[in-house]
Amino acid sequence: MLPLESVPNFSEGRDSLVIADIGTELARFAKLLDVHSDADHNRSVYTFAGDEEQIVDALLAGIAVAQERIDLREHAGVHPRIGVADVVPVVAIRREDGELARETARIAAQRIGEELGLPVFLYGEIGEGRGPAFFRRGGPEELQRRIDAGELTPDFGPRQLHPSAGGVIVGARRPLIAFNVNLANADVEAARAIACTIRERNGGFPGVRALGLDLPRAGHAQISMNVEDWEAAALHDIVAAIEREAAARGVELAGAELVGLMPAGAAIAAAGALLRIQGFDASHILELRLLE
Amino acid sequence: MLPLESVPNFSEGRDSLVIADIGTELARFAKLLDVHSDADHNRSVYTFAGDEEQIVDALLAGIAVAQERIDLREHAGVHPRIGVADVVPVVAIRREDGELARETARIAAQRIGEELGLPVFLYGEIGEGRGPAFFRRGGPEELQRRIDAGELTPDFGPRQLHPSAGGVIVGARRPLIAFNVNLANADVEAARAIACTIRERNGGFPGVRALGLDLPRAGHAQISMNVEDWEAAALHDIVAAIEREAAARGVELAGAELVGLMPAGAAIAAAGALLRIQGFDASHILELRLLE
Repeated sequence: MLPLESVPNFSEGRDSLVIADIGTELARFAKLLDVHSDADHNRSVYTFAGDEEQIVDALLAGIAVAQERIDLREHAGVHPRIGVADVVPVVAIRREDGELARETARIAAQRIGEELGLPVFLYGEIGEGRGPAFFRRGGPEELQRRIDAGELTPDFGPRQLHPSAGGVIVGARRPLIAFNVNLANADVEAARAIACTIRERNGGFPGVRALGLDLPRAGHAQISMNVEDWEAAALHDIVAAIEREAAARGVELAGAELVGLMPAGAAIAAAGALLRIQGFDASHILELRLLE
Repeated sequence: MLPLESVPNFSEGRDSLVIADIGTELARFAKLLDVHSDADHNRSVYTFAGDEEQIVDALLAGIAVAQERIDLREHAGVHPRIGVADVVPVVAIRREDGELARETARIAAQRIGEELGLPVFLYGEIGEGRGPAFFRRGGPEELQRRIDAGELTPDFGPRQLHPSAGGVIVGARRPLIAFNVNLANADVEAARAIACTIRERNGGFPGVRALGLDLPRAGHAQISMNVEDWEAAALHDIVAAIEREAAARGVELAGAELVGLMPAGAAIAAAGALLRIQGFDASHILELRLLE
């Protein structure tokens, strides 16, 4: 089985030709598994798998296309971002490949800085635990000001953000689930209030980050989440809590969506809860047992 | 990936030494994935995978142990049965291996008859569509009477049921899910009435067979089901229907249990329903995508 995946976020969710071209380029080097584009977020999240070399080659090639085809100065979207290739995580699929993921992320970061001339910031396990939000807040202008003021320094590449392509945030992390719940009849304030009750920062579920967003193109508000540890915070418990909080505000859920892929265990835990099977886990799934 | 699995039911669910010895014997030849034993049913269901030769060798060896160690004349259990190795299905894991499964089942059936001296009856795809129940009704005595009366003839082996080991029902079938729902505070009559509303035969879910059983050792009644096609009848819809029917009778569910393993798709469909993700299927599960 391929040991690594990467889940880069590119700042284009509307121009289907650019979205396809980035995917084609990634697929030349690695196994492209999923592309999730969103017009409101105006970004596309690609999921691909490979070995160390395939991951680095695919990232370099894909980011080069994004640098050529996307202009951050003309970009608008609900998610904060500081580059055309915004956040670039390298993920170990098996727990024991963590060091391989960190090493691969460091190599990719160095080559993006040196070969593409973009400032690169390390985050997560190789970046002193800082998250993407640390770099994104205030957008590209604020990030440049902090660099100029000596508050932070790119780990690789120039000290000047690229005028049209910005900078890149590269890291290694454990697998996470990017999962959004849409609200049928709510404004963004209700979404933000519900997000507050869910996320770890405000005393909610451990390892859950949540934002309330307005998605005018889709026509609804959304709770956009990262779930870092589905064993600590089960997806179905999160959805149930959102539903309770929504009901208390007279708001109904309009469904959920997954960004990228889900680890089997998270889905199986939800199935066990609905089907009322105690102790139901991956060891009860035929296809997964045949992999052993 | 191994192409076939077999899910034989052996008529011993209480003597853990016999249960373990059969498992050890099966595992000498094939990849043993699961053993599900039940004291009330007094049977154990083994799930193992292999190629054509491994499946046949494991079945011959496992049934020989059962023939030596189990005496059907001293057997009692809630499930009808006609042999120490009662029903022996060979299952193609992928749809395209159906003919391989049928051929493997025929070879196993012939060798069980000739080498172990047990009467073998073909069922399912290689047995004119007849199900195990066709042979089981009335038990071994009635089956012998029907053979003697010329109503049916074993496909392989002698015309006389083995005094202590009975006969064996061998077939090939598509994967099915054996799934039981337990009722907290119901007698067997309520379980039977609910089973009636669920099963295809009485106008319920397509491809669902259901029995209401009393499990005195476990201390509850049970709805014991085979779900032949989880795309036609979703497990979570079946559980919801049982819950509604139970509530109408003042009965509560005491959880569910899986016998053997579940195909990934069935669990993922349940997860999608609970998490409210439209179109959620195996293509969204990381580990399964990496298999492609």
